[in-house]
Amino acid sequence: MGSESVGGQPTLFEPVTPPDETVRAQAEARQLQLTKPAGSLGRLETLACWAAACQGVCPPTPFGRVRVVVFAGDHGIARKGVSAYPPEVTAQMVANFVNGGAAVNALANRVGASVRVVDISVDGDTDPSLSTFKIRRSSGSIDREDALTHEETLRAIDAGRAIADAEIDSGADLLIAGEMGIGNTTPATVLIATLTDTEPVAAVGRGTGVDDAGWIRKTAAIRDAMRRARPVVRDVVALLRTSGGADLAAMAGFLAQASARRTPVILDGITVTSAAMAAEELARGARAWWLAGHCSTEPAHKIALKHLDLDPLLDLDMRLGEGSGALTALPILQGAVAALAEMATFAEAGVSTRAGESDTEPDGEDDIDQAGPTSD
Amino acid sequence: MGSESVGGQPTLFEPVTPPDETVRAQAEARQLQLTKPAGSLGRLETLACWAAACQGVCPPTPFGRVRVVVFAGDHGIARKGVSAYPPEVTAQMVANFVNGGAAVNALANRVGASVRVVDISVDGDTDPSLSTFKIRRSSGSIDREDALTHEETLRAIDAGRAIADAEIDSGADLLIAGEMGIGNTTPATVLIATLTDTEPVAAVGRGTGVDDAGWIRKTAAIRDAMRRARPVVRDVVALLRTSGGADLAAMAGFLAQASARRTPVILDGITVTSAAMAAEELARGARAWWLAGHCSTEPAHKIALKHLDLDPLLDLDMRLGEGSGALTALPILQGAVAALAEMATFAEAGVSTRAGESDTEPDGEDDIDQAGPTSD
Repeated sequence: MGSESVGGQPTLFEPVTPPDETVRAQAEARQLQLTKPAGSLGRLETLACWAAACQGVCPPTPFGRVRVVVFAGDHGIARKGVSAYPPEVTAQMVANFVNGGAAVNALANRVGASVRVVDISVDGDTDPSLSTFKIRRSSGSIDREDALTHEETLRAIDAGRAIADAEIDSGADLLIAGEMGIGNTTPATVLIATLTDTEPVAAVGRGTGVDDAGWIRKTAAIRDAMRRARPVVRDVVALLRTSGGADLAAMAGFLAQASARRTPVILDGITVTSAAMAAEELARGARAWWLAGHCSTEPAHKIALKHLDLDPLLDLDMRLGEGSGALTALPILQGAVAALAEMATFAEAGVSTRAGESDTEPDGEDDIDQAGPTSD
Repeated sequence: MGSESVGGQPTLFEPVTPPDETVRAQAEARQLQLTKPAGSLGRLETLACWAAACQGVCPPTPFGRVRVVVFAGDHGIARKGVSAYPPEVTAQMVANFVNGGAAVNALANRVGASVRVVDISVDGDTDPSLSTFKIRRSSGSIDREDALTHEETLRAIDAGRAIADAEIDSGADLLIAGEMGIGNTTPATVLIATLTDTEPVAAVGRGTGVDDAGWIRKTAAIRDAMRRARPVVRDVVALLRTSGGADLAAMAGFLAQASARRTPVILDGITVTSAAMAAEELARGARAWWLAGHCSTEPAHKIALKHLDLDPLLDLDMRLGEGSGALTALPILQGAVAALAEMATFAEAGVSTRAGESDTEPDGEDDIDQAGPTSD
């Protein structure tokens, strides 16, 4: 599990190196040569430059092997009435993923991504092919006990790291972490609120169908868990042990290792993003390799994205998880890359540049339209 | 050009019938049966239900023949310094589209759409295969003269209608109007501001590189054109003649006919949306067949979308046109349709429903989590 740092805290990950800034600058320069007004593709231009920097080559190529890994795990807190569904749904949904019937399957098929499900801590038996990395059945009820032991926490982080390594070694060039676990927004909210020093009332969402009494009850559970979490806020392994869960720890390891291996990731919703916050603690700089796919309806998700200084691409009122938000964002990234890679330059296409920058200016007047060759 | 109405104004289009509300209700009911918490796919759920209503069948199928038609035309006002690029760029970009080098080509290729370019009013000669529907060279400078004659306006609307008919007859199941024309945001802003009774200063965008003097100059041109436009605001054919252009009139005819033919459309940026406002005047109810793909950086675009009561899917600071915003939104619609069409139901997958709705409730507590089976 890596070497020991001077403070006695295990150094779990190799230092993260940032995407290639030289290539990013090349991509930015190329954007200016393409047959469009400078900046007119908006966010698509910065996305494509980020992709080029991650790939280390300009022009970049659309991602050809996108892999979604769904981390499944149960949570003791789900027995405290923090979910609309019974805990056995986690295992039922794992079967649904394997059979291709879930949202993540339909969305992944549509955009050419593949889906893998791993049972990290489902409270029941799943097919042995899914449970190679299983840490335990469920995690502790974090309002009154630790989610995991220290040893389980390290094993879960290591499992996530091993899964990232295996996927990258198999050729994945873009990774998405998804999740499935009844009640998993509760530890996610605890992690986010604790790491950002946010009051529970500001972090807990109402969502659909939560009445006042329910909101108060859920908030109380999170408040109790945060009392146990705050003393260890500066030790992320202890924080995952105290108030996370095996699935969250594994996702954190997965996300940290993806960055250490210079592999970009599209983040999904609140649960994955809470793990991403832990991953950034485990491996400083990891966030440079992440694109925030969307912003969900959960207040804590917005808080986490702001903390990570990530600007979500979409805002479509999604709150499903599984990786569904990341997969919805994926084709926008792919389109952005295609535009940078395939568009002709002004020189190649024989298209005149801005009036003030060429000898083709017809009337000598200053340009006053921001839109340029195609006006939108 | 259709029959005469009692008022002497030609009735150019057959009445628009709305998408199938019975099928929409079926789709909404189906969403509740799929293995996800109700509403958890957010905007994707309403999108898929709209697609089902447009197709008249539930579940819907992803759109298989998406066609982008780029309407190219020049504008006399471009000679007044309202564009950063010289007018000959319009024809140069038409060649770039044909050669596959523009943003619209790269984005369309990526999402499996095809692109057609039509020369409606380019100020120069283009290949005869592109100019079958050419109305004239350029359009009048709308600050001091009409863009078109009445006869040209009717011919342009009819050209757009014929193009829509040809594409639908060839099997297109989803249409996108794109545009190319140096200076075309000026008539677009005039149409939008006139139809919504907006002051020019509130409608004209600054965009990139427009200094104070330039913004004042552009606003003055739009103000002058609006003085000529306001007296005919209640007669959309006269409005297109006075302050539109052949390309805008053709797009309006195209969009109105698509709706009359019950074919959905994804709208693009300010110029296409200004034509959509005219199309809604030509054929009331047409907007029910449109999805607003994105919101550009232009203030007038937001104003037009609000007037049409359309909620844009994306907000990515795009301002290129060509159909690029619509093509960026397309895969989100396709993903939404795939989810509705391909996901398993609770019954099919053997997944338990909400605790309060089954006998599997483990602890008798009320549900207080809004997220359900997968929490995000």
